Amino acid sequence: MHALPAFLALLLLSAGLSAADASKKAPQKEIVWHDASQWKPAGRAWDDTPSHYSRLPQRAEGKVTKAVWRLSRNSAGLVVYFRTNAPVIHTRHEVSGELAKPHMTATGVSGLDLYARAPNGQWRWAGSSKPKNKIHEEKILNGATPEWRDYMLYLPLYNNTTSVEIGVPEGSGFEPVAPPQAKPIVYYGTSIAHGCSASRPGMTTPAILGRKLDTPVINLGFSGNGKMEPAMAGLVAEIDASVFVLDCLPNMSSLAADEITKRTENCIRAIRKKHPATPIILMEDRSYANAWILPRQFKKNETARAALRVAYETLAAEGVKGVTYVTGGQLFGDDDEGTVDSSHPSDLGMYRQAEILLPVLKRVLKE
Amino acid sequence: MHALPAFLALLLLSAGLSAADASKKAPQKEIVWHDASQWKPAGRAWDDTPSHYSRLPQRAEGKVTKAVWRLSRNSAGLVVYFRTNAPVIHTRHEVSGELAKPHMTATGVSGLDLYARAPNGQWRWAGSSKPKNKIHEEKILNGATPEWRDYMLYLPLYNNTTSVEIGVPEGSGFEPVAPPQAKPIVYYGTSIAHGCSASRPGMTTPAILGRKLDTPVINLGFSGNGKMEPAMAGLVAEIDASVFVLDCLPNMSSLAADEITKRTENCIRAIRKKHPATPIILMEDRSYANAWILPRQFKKNETARAALRVAYETLAAEGVKGVTYVTGGQLFGDDDEGTVDSSHPSDLGMYRQAEILLPVLKRVLKE
Repeated sequence: MHALPAFLALLLLSAGLSAADASKKAPQKEIVWHDASQWKPAGRAWDDTPSHYSRLPQRAEGKVTKAVWRLSRNSAGLVVYFRTNAPVIHTRHEVSGELAKPHMTATGVSGLDLYARAPNGQWRWAGSSKPKNKIHEEKILNGATPEWRDYMLYLPLYNNTTSVEIGVPEGSGFEPVAPPQAKPIVYYGTSIAHGCSASRPGMTTPAILGRKLDTPVINLGFSGNGKMEPAMAGLVAEIDASVFVLDCLPNMSSLAADEITKRTENCIRAIRKKHPATPIILMEDRSYANAWILPRQFKKNETARAALRVAYETLAAEGVKGVTYVTGGQLFGDDDEGTVDSSHPSDLGMYRQAEILLPVLKRVLKE
Repeated sequence: MHALPAFLALLLLSAGLSAADASKKAPQKEIVWHDASQWKPAGRAWDDTPSHYSRLPQRAEGKVTKAVWRLSRNSAGLVVYFRTNAPVIHTRHEVSGELAKPHMTATGVSGLDLYARAPNGQWRWAGSSKPKNKIHEEKILNGATPEWRDYMLYLPLYNNTTSVEIGVPEGSGFEPVAPPQAKPIVYYGTSIAHGCSASRPGMTTPAILGRKLDTPVINLGFSGNGKMEPAMAGLVAEIDASVFVLDCLPNMSSLAADEITKRTENCIRAIRKKHPATPIILMEDRSYANAWILPRQFKKNETARAALRVAYETLAAEGVKGVTYVTGGQLFGDDDEGTVDSSHPSDLGMYRQAEILLPVLKRVLKE
């Protein structure tokens, strides 16, 4: 038996239990911790990142905007794969920023989210954490049957993650797993792709699609800053993707119409130059959930979509192939109930959007 | 023009604008505030409550458990009705407790949520607030066409609300609206009914059902404490309901099986004594989202449901009529994705649960 902290020994004694009694009742095994920075996470397109849980290469600093660079440090979409037969899985992780947003939970902003491969081959949800401090330790799974399983651990969406450790009881097996080798979906977008306001990191639209298609996803969502600047278009085009999803219009709708058109055309040309045949999904912006009552919001959707449509048609006329246009009107549903704040989807909106994109992705990935 | 605060005048001057210039660009009208404590909210079953935004009568103190009494001070399910033709609606409200939970947003715990009656008669979402402090002021709607509309303003789910004011620009019309007179759905339950983890106050299952059926709902959800004690059963039975929904099993599953059975039978008998023909919906507990991997959670669901089923069958054998039994297995969906933490539904789980209950309620309300 290993030493008990003095305060705990006192507590047990004062409750009429000796430390030895307590030990008999629930023998505590040592936790063996595994530092996830020792193997590569899925969802990270580059190796030369400024930190292990960061999304853009160091050389992008100074080329992308300061805001994009700052947001690229958020661990959105990064997933640690591992295998274990442990009945209990502990997590201990550290983030550097605010734990929550008013319209987004700490679990989503700063928490971890665990899925396991079920016997039928599907990824099924297993556990999430409820961070109350920047350093947070939790039994994320407690009482599983001790079979070997593959796990995916999604990292915090809207925080910089500085450390992730996975703990299993002494004697349980544990193996780091390298990220899947398949070409990833590259999902470039705004706060919505980034994950606001998923209740937990596994419930972003890109993450849901990744599980349903059992394929890796690169989340390049940058809150408020998915704007297809040339530097970002160039970085997106570097990735050897299975499909590119471009979901930037919710941020670009604040630009002039001709700028929306120009950036969209240039971004798609940059991708096509390097990837002549890779499918591209060009998404309209989601409808504001209160656009029905606020004419200004309705107009903003309409104007942005018209400008995006011009880009799509210009490229088609130029002979650019393989671009699928997805309309935005019902991405979060047809009842205005899919958002927390008009703009940002709850899990309901995230899920509905995934349901719309799933058949589109299946089709273009099969072609 | 009314006086500008000195700091604002300075700010405008330093930006090269005179106060008169700013005034020309965006003439600021005075806000006329309406204190919502001046008329009764919907969702409150009793008038003799200890505060305007509280859910149980004063005489319940000392009869219900301390925890239930404390939680009854939360404004879950209370809705302020009003009419206005204002293009801008301001809200200013105060809560007394923690703004958020790790797995629930401040918008849901402490925020306001606005719906408007659309021309087709449906309630459609219009705006929500993002509280950052206990006293929070916000333009919850900005830029509506200036038509007369009915509005519903849902109050915070998991906080004690001490004050709610609704502001409209000087010159706009405003009318308090009394709560609907129809018999309410009485929804008695746990944290799930109470609203954890809806992203905003309008997204609890009871609230969704209320809008879809266009009927008032009394939310008697008490986080961790929906346990059908005799005192609570008596209070529930006081209400002249259109239907009673009993959704307490997620909290009662920690009780012994025979206690679950006994309390359920006694609660339904108490209701039947006063309401011989009012429909009663008896709900099983939702499946834990990770019950597939955690045998203990699976067993907990199974044991509790068996005990509930005994109560249902005993009552049926006694000749008690009008009790509809709803199974719990798929209340939040069939894919384990409907919760934030295994137990508490996100908006996705809340919505799916409402979709299951809606046809049941429609049927029993028609009979």
